[in-house]
Amino acid sequence: MTTNQLESLDHLEQFAPGRVLTDAESLSRYSHDDAEWADFVPPLAVVLATSTEEVASVVRWASDRGVRVVPRGAGTGLSGGANSIENSIVVSLELMNEVLSVNVDERYAVTQPGVINDALRAHVAGFGLWYPPDPASSAISTIGGNAATNAGGICCVKYGVTRDYVLRMTVVLASGEIVSLGHDTAKGVTGYDLAGLMVGSEGTLGIITELTVRLLPLAGREERAVIGYFPSLEAAGVAVAAISRAGIIPAALELIDHTCLVAVDEWQNLGLPSGAQALLLAKVDETGPAGESLADRIASLFAEAGGSSVERATDADEINRLFLARRLAYPALERLGPVLTEDICVPRSAVPEMLQRIQRTAARNDVVIANIAHAGDGNLHPLIIAPVGDDAAKARAKTAFDRIVADCLELGGTVTGEHGVGLLKLDGARLELGGAVIRMHEAIKNGLDPLGTLNPGKGF
Amino acid sequence: MTTNQLESLDHLEQFAPGRVLTDAESLSRYSHDDAEWADFVPPLAVVLATSTEEVASVVRWASDRGVRVVPRGAGTGLSGGANSIENSIVVSLELMNEVLSVNVDERYAVTQPGVINDALRAHVAGFGLWYPPDPASSAISTIGGNAATNAGGICCVKYGVTRDYVLRMTVVLASGEIVSLGHDTAKGVTGYDLAGLMVGSEGTLGIITELTVRLLPLAGREERAVIGYFPSLEAAGVAVAAISRAGIIPAALELIDHTCLVAVDEWQNLGLPSGAQALLLAKVDETGPAGESLADRIASLFAEAGGSSVERATDADEINRLFLARRLAYPALERLGPVLTEDICVPRSAVPEMLQRIQRTAARNDVVIANIAHAGDGNLHPLIIAPVGDDAAKARAKTAFDRIVADCLELGGTVTGEHGVGLLKLDGARLELGGAVIRMHEAIKNGLDPLGTLNPGKGF
Repeated sequence: MTTNQLESLDHLEQFAPGRVLTDAESLSRYSHDDAEWADFVPPLAVVLATSTEEVASVVRWASDRGVRVVPRGAGTGLSGGANSIENSIVVSLELMNEVLSVNVDERYAVTQPGVINDALRAHVAGFGLWYPPDPASSAISTIGGNAATNAGGICCVKYGVTRDYVLRMTVVLASGEIVSLGHDTAKGVTGYDLAGLMVGSEGTLGIITELTVRLLPLAGREERAVIGYFPSLEAAGVAVAAISRAGIIPAALELIDHTCLVAVDEWQNLGLPSGAQALLLAKVDETGPAGESLADRIASLFAEAGGSSVERATDADEINRLFLARRLAYPALERLGPVLTEDICVPRSAVPEMLQRIQRTAARNDVVIANIAHAGDGNLHPLIIAPVGDDAAKARAKTAFDRIVADCLELGGTVTGEHGVGLLKLDGARLELGGAVIRMHEAIKNGLDPLGTLNPGKGF
Repeated sequence: MTTNQLESLDHLEQFAPGRVLTDAESLSRYSHDDAEWADFVPPLAVVLATSTEEVASVVRWASDRGVRVVPRGAGTGLSGGANSIENSIVVSLELMNEVLSVNVDERYAVTQPGVINDALRAHVAGFGLWYPPDPASSAISTIGGNAATNAGGICCVKYGVTRDYVLRMTVVLASGEIVSLGHDTAKGVTGYDLAGLMVGSEGTLGIITELTVRLLPLAGREERAVIGYFPSLEAAGVAVAAISRAGIIPAALELIDHTCLVAVDEWQNLGLPSGAQALLLAKVDETGPAGESLADRIASLFAEAGGSSVERATDADEINRLFLARRLAYPALERLGPVLTEDICVPRSAVPEMLQRIQRTAARNDVVIANIAHAGDGNLHPLIIAPVGDDAAKARAKTAFDRIVADCLELGGTVTGEHGVGLLKLDGARLELGGAVIRMHEAIKNGLDPLGTLNPGKGF
């Protein structure tokens, strides 16, 4: 670092006294998110912001000096969107972690961006309200990060994604200006949907420093789970398609493939039925006889498609037991080596074909690939595992990663269903979007951030 | 028109042979939408486009000559968004009126933009599917226009607005380039949400020439209606708030005020209960005992809030009879004079206060204002009536219009809930959005349409 830069960092300190970190350990800790293998360059400094005004001052400081700003929630992203880059500072929103208010009559909450997803849910549950989007990272990821990546989750098949719940936001623009986008009302079409544009823009157009999120009533739902083991991926795919065609929209419809099941079974000895190539886990949340009837129909459709060991549960503990394999899948796989998490979304009907192609890709490249899928959405998470320190395996894993992206596009899919483009999916995004649409992105980026201050090089 | 322009129009003819209209009657007919009192200037020509490629050629032709392009669906807009402007041609999408395909497994339809909303619903119903957004204009407005304005409707309180159903679109940009935005899959976060940005942008960023819309299963719904008359707007407001607080999300919750009821009653002699100041109409669509119980609870909440003549219906014909006053409200008012339709959205809890202010505004300005409201959304449609040819009344109506917009903003509302800004709400939009957000709009508009070809001066 030059003397000038050091003096400059001293200047930065005045905006966030005691909260500008420059020690090596902090710079390392804040230099990347949870994406395996995405590049990063340690930042010049990390600022732990505590207010919108602080963020605005810091962005203005950076913009004046040609320094780039990388916003960061909890750093749980899986695409490298929060990875620091050359000549950058990281602005962490983790200390802005208060739910500011809950409006019961209008059913919304106003929250700072650093609130953990599960903490927001717990808070609003105290008011009889429910925030649906439930990424698997809900215990560790923040609402601000969820909004910046338009996070999905398990119940999205019925309840939609983060974008569907963001009503209004306070945003610090690249100029340091503070704006409020969106509206608190149930509807509103004044001007362009800029709040919607910010959601999923991965910190490249603005830094979200406050959010108003729409909530649903907590009451009026009764969870019922149905699980079934299938002799083949095709059989499971047939069951998924049959549920969709029957006009049933489940509150969850998850698939776990053989590789994943074996990893969990070897670790926890679940007593996996022999010959099980896939496990489907469904939930419905309609009340009373309507819910009962839907669960019946799903159980029948599972059986008709060749599902065995079909089990049902209505009790919360029992449901948790049935969903255990889903919760343990990721840690079970991590025992086998570093996991490169894919995230693709294909048409629901293409799920079996996509899963077959993934298995072929695994075999051809001699890597282990396990699959968790939000099957009801066609959103697959192939988990590519490479032994620690095996560079050749790592290279083969990268080849497999690219092949999966190409196959997904061939089947009419999108290269990221819910994790975001970040750095890992830049090539895939270019392939999917094409030149003219990328130029639209550039026009918008240049219009709103002409100096390229905010998280440049990410997202598209 | 100059000789050059005439030669130019001849050139235009080659792109749409026989479908370039320049006769006075056509120019007049296509020069404005259904917004009373919004300005317009007859266009140079009207092009009845029949394909994406034609639209692209026409836009390129216009862009090369500094001619502006005003896209038009059915011209049923209520804000002047489709009004032609100086040195413009109107590109009508009305002939592009085919539903191209329905994908039952993935639950979406691919449609041309000129398909009438009701025609799309009827078409997909044949496949057991349902397109929820139901603007009151559903019998006459097009899907393309619905998307360009992000149209709402009656069932939006439960099912959301047009934006929530647009998955993908083909768009002709100001450059004449043809792009595909969005994705066919259930989820997808590759790049910015440009399909979402186009929805509601009122033809200022691109011309939508094809749409993929998400559908829901038609089965699994059973409609039940509950209506009640209330002795005051406050009492009706209390009922609306009580339903919301009880965690009930109805499939419709409409309010009709006294002025409106009297207009309908005087015309159709409905037998209006004496002292009725407001009518609330609710629908639920849960099946079986769940739906029955919800209808019971709404009926109880109506009665508790002072509602009388509470009636219920489950039969489709009976439901239609109960909703008759809602359907007849607009034509009943049009008998009294030209109607200037307002469209504001306030927090649900502010509905009674807003309705009172509207009545005060009516009294102070000596104009008749009747109200239809999507009460469950806080979306109000004050209908301002001025006798034909009475210029003083027209001026007073305009004063009332501006006062309503100001009151709406004071109560935390938005100046347009579902009709769009067009020309009529430009001042309101500037007040609501403020300078910094308007500059963001300009940056995006300039980035995507640097020459200002597409519908300039509309929307913000």
